[in-house]
Amino acid sequence: MSERTGRRGRGGRAARRERQPGAVIAAPYIVRKIPPMEVLDEEGLAVIEANADIILDEIGIEFRDDAEVLELWRGAGADVQGERVHLPKGLARSLLATAPSQFTQHARNPERSVEIGGDNTVFAPVYGPPFVHDLDQGRRYGTIEDFRNFVKLTYQSPHLHHSGGTVCEPVDLPVNKRHLDMVYSHVKYSDKPFMGSVTHPKRAEDSLRMAEIVFGREFVDSHCVLVNLINANSPMVFDATMLGALKAYARGNQACLLSPFILAGAMSPVTAAGTLAQLLAEAMAGMALIQLLRPGAPMIFGAFVSSISMQSGAPTFGTPESSLLLAGAAQLARRLKLPFRSGGSLCAAKVPDAQAAQESANTLMTTLLAGTNFVLHGAGWLEGGLCSSYEKFVIDQDQLGMMAVLAKGIDLSLDGQAMDALREVGPGGHFLGCAHTQAHFATAFYRSSTADNNPVEQWQADGGLDTAQRANGLWKEMLAGYEPPPLDPAIDEALGAFIAEKKAAEPDSAY
Amino acid sequence: MSERTGRRGRGGRAARRERQPGAVIAAPYIVRKIPPMEVLDEEGLAVIEANADIILDEIGIEFRDDAEVLELWRGAGADVQGERVHLPKGLARSLLATAPSQFTQHARNPERSVEIGGDNTVFAPVYGPPFVHDLDQGRRYGTIEDFRNFVKLTYQSPHLHHSGGTVCEPVDLPVNKRHLDMVYSHVKYSDKPFMGSVTHPKRAEDSLRMAEIVFGREFVDSHCVLVNLINANSPMVFDATMLGALKAYARGNQACLLSPFILAGAMSPVTAAGTLAQLLAEAMAGMALIQLLRPGAPMIFGAFVSSISMQSGAPTFGTPESSLLLAGAAQLARRLKLPFRSGGSLCAAKVPDAQAAQESANTLMTTLLAGTNFVLHGAGWLEGGLCSSYEKFVIDQDQLGMMAVLAKGIDLSLDGQAMDALREVGPGGHFLGCAHTQAHFATAFYRSSTADNNPVEQWQADGGLDTAQRANGLWKEMLAGYEPPPLDPAIDEALGAFIAEKKAAEPDSAY
Repeated sequence: MSERTGRRGRGGRAARRERQPGAVIAAPYIVRKIPPMEVLDEEGLAVIEANADIILDEIGIEFRDDAEVLELWRGAGADVQGERVHLPKGLARSLLATAPSQFTQHARNPERSVEIGGDNTVFAPVYGPPFVHDLDQGRRYGTIEDFRNFVKLTYQSPHLHHSGGTVCEPVDLPVNKRHLDMVYSHVKYSDKPFMGSVTHPKRAEDSLRMAEIVFGREFVDSHCVLVNLINANSPMVFDATMLGALKAYARGNQACLLSPFILAGAMSPVTAAGTLAQLLAEAMAGMALIQLLRPGAPMIFGAFVSSISMQSGAPTFGTPESSLLLAGAAQLARRLKLPFRSGGSLCAAKVPDAQAAQESANTLMTTLLAGTNFVLHGAGWLEGGLCSSYEKFVIDQDQLGMMAVLAKGIDLSLDGQAMDALREVGPGGHFLGCAHTQAHFATAFYRSSTADNNPVEQWQADGGLDTAQRANGLWKEMLAGYEPPPLDPAIDEALGAFIAEKKAAEPDSAY
Repeated sequence: MSERTGRRGRGGRAARRERQPGAVIAAPYIVRKIPPMEVLDEEGLAVIEANADIILDEIGIEFRDDAEVLELWRGAGADVQGERVHLPKGLARSLLATAPSQFTQHARNPERSVEIGGDNTVFAPVYGPPFVHDLDQGRRYGTIEDFRNFVKLTYQSPHLHHSGGTVCEPVDLPVNKRHLDMVYSHVKYSDKPFMGSVTHPKRAEDSLRMAEIVFGREFVDSHCVLVNLINANSPMVFDATMLGALKAYARGNQACLLSPFILAGAMSPVTAAGTLAQLLAEAMAGMALIQLLRPGAPMIFGAFVSSISMQSGAPTFGTPESSLLLAGAAQLARRLKLPFRSGGSLCAAKVPDAQAAQESANTLMTTLLAGTNFVLHGAGWLEGGLCSSYEKFVIDQDQLGMMAVLAKGIDLSLDGQAMDALREVGPGGHFLGCAHTQAHFATAFYRSSTADNNPVEQWQADGGLDTAQRANGLWKEMLAGYEPPPLDPAIDEALGAFIAEKKAAEPDSAY
């Protein structure tokens, strides 16, 4: 990441005040130095794996409305009954053996390419909300202008490593064409890696063609340049839309983010162990299919898993149950030696208030500590994923910056041990003025762009604003200071021609 | 905890709506089933321990204005130079060997006694703020009425196991007498375990005498009924006030919570490894003194440690650095086989907003995962500890309830595995109606009393309140429904007589 962008991203009055020459520039992704948290021991993991094998074999997984997929499974040795595929014990696991445990997703700016898997963590913004929210206009449908704004804000944040995908739904564009403007916006307004469309196999193909225009056809066939969100229809179903997109991307050697979408209690058992067994079975089945289609294709074991209110049936986030599920799923993914996706800054709150913040913090802390490799919904998620919030985006990305510091762990170098400082200061002294502190003045401690740590009198003099009100000023300052990354005009023109051709080829449609 | 109180504590409209017969009654403390997070490996821990030994030996610790303590150290083999005590390598560690690794703090209601140490976690409310804050009256000095209110709210919450100590400063009472009303309030309005006064050795003695009235003199000498907060004046100093209280409680066989109070960058080096070495040295010196005074006395290795803003010098909370420090300190305490205190719901925010919530959540999640045994400031802390907040109290204690669920880990029983449910429902089905879900309906998933998980339309119809506004209604409902626990009238009378005698014995004083 260039210094210039790194700084621009730390927008806002407070950030300007605190900005120092020599401030740390964020890395293109996080390399974790602390060990992952574990909530299951070997015995527990073995129980869940055995139960997943039973689900795959005895209960089976449905692959709907796709004869080709069923034929593939038959050829691989599965027992196919109608659309129900029973995988004999060991089949899925043996197919997964060809998948890479870590891979590079290339960005059009090579400095922003990310490593997915291993000890690495990549943060991407919110994905999917049809609505947007800000303090000025409240809640409303998202537009392509909002979409571009969230791409720009993501580009400007030094704490988001990935441009994401559907940062909000541009509801003002026809459903069958908006993917063209979405992919284009990621290329045009950012140079971070991004995601392709999955809402129709043709839109997946369009995403691949546009990636080929940006990266070159041969490069795309041999390198990952798109990560693509494929949800299972839990429990234990894959539908034709998802299978179509999965096939397009797998054959194109692009990474599927194979994520069962589970709200426990409704789409899985009410218990964590039962939910994890189902999650593992679904993920293994989907990922094994990817390896059947193209052995060696990159992919990510995904887990979007939370719970519901047993009283209202409403989805809940940031709960202790979801933390246990997340950490348990991460352990299962590590046992398969596959990259893992989960978590983010999830919440059920309707406004960026205390509930939003604590639900998000609970999710995010678990996400980081569990050793998650790819984090969708890292910033901006509000109202159970129905809203992309401008203010919450700014608040969340600041939290992502904190997670990067936490992931680094404790510096045990001689300088980190600071024995000279302790000897210099001694009992009753003050460390602020000592040589060691002065040498670290500019880089010691993460500097939050959204927290107000001033005394109450200063805070009152500054207007007595709460966090959301401060964030309202910050995102506006960021957007006002946005400067696009350079883009080869020939690529820009070719993308424009492709989009124009595609838009002309069929009438607008609302599905 | 009685069912009646457990329910009463889940105050508020939402809680009433969701209340079910057979709801889980909170336990008197948490028994953790998940392993602690670790941020240091064996080598890192050994480095920090060696550096702490160097601090104790070569730099030394100052014990100020207390000739008796210096004489004790001399007798134990320390090299005493003026007020500077140099502990030869191994001395502190050998003295600590007599301390219990776990002990019971008795409550006047035996059902509320807590186990401190081992895999247990005990939550206590905020300690020390001179101000209180609520949405109606804003920020103001605390009074004895506020004090009583926080004791009552703590009693009513099923998620707080301990009544704490200075839940706010009753600034309307004279400094030299307010401890009498504070200790009395804990006894009168709650039956949970509580803390004694430490602001003067005489006030510590008064606390001991009042405890003897409640528990009986012999019982107190052989059982822990008070936990008492003794701060080191970091760096590397203990002052006469703290030493006086320490001596009173140690000799009385009551538990000192020996806590260096460190804001890294000001009171310790700017680095985590340097800060941890200093913290360990200070804690070991203070705790070794306790064992010198009364071998076998119960005590807790405390760590109040965060960082400052390098720009303004203001204390910061919920930062990634403080999480690393907390988790590292917990590991050091475990190596000494001593109970550990740290964490809570700490924040620098001025109002119970997003900043308050995320700083608190970051602290609390680390607190729980690090395996902390005693958690002061579990609920109500606002503005860097300057305010006890009514709304934040209600929000925080709900989060404590979530931590209890997280600590339980994943149920791997046959019922938890839920294979019957998976077989019954199968691909494409719905789990809400299945037998397994119905059997767990009342107890599955933690029920938050402060989160709003309703659809936005319902939330708007309910007034569109943010979390703090909802909490404002909840604490009022809790206080309105408060019923005191029974107290033996003879004890009540004896306490009253003791307090009257003490108050008459000296004039009011402001210090």
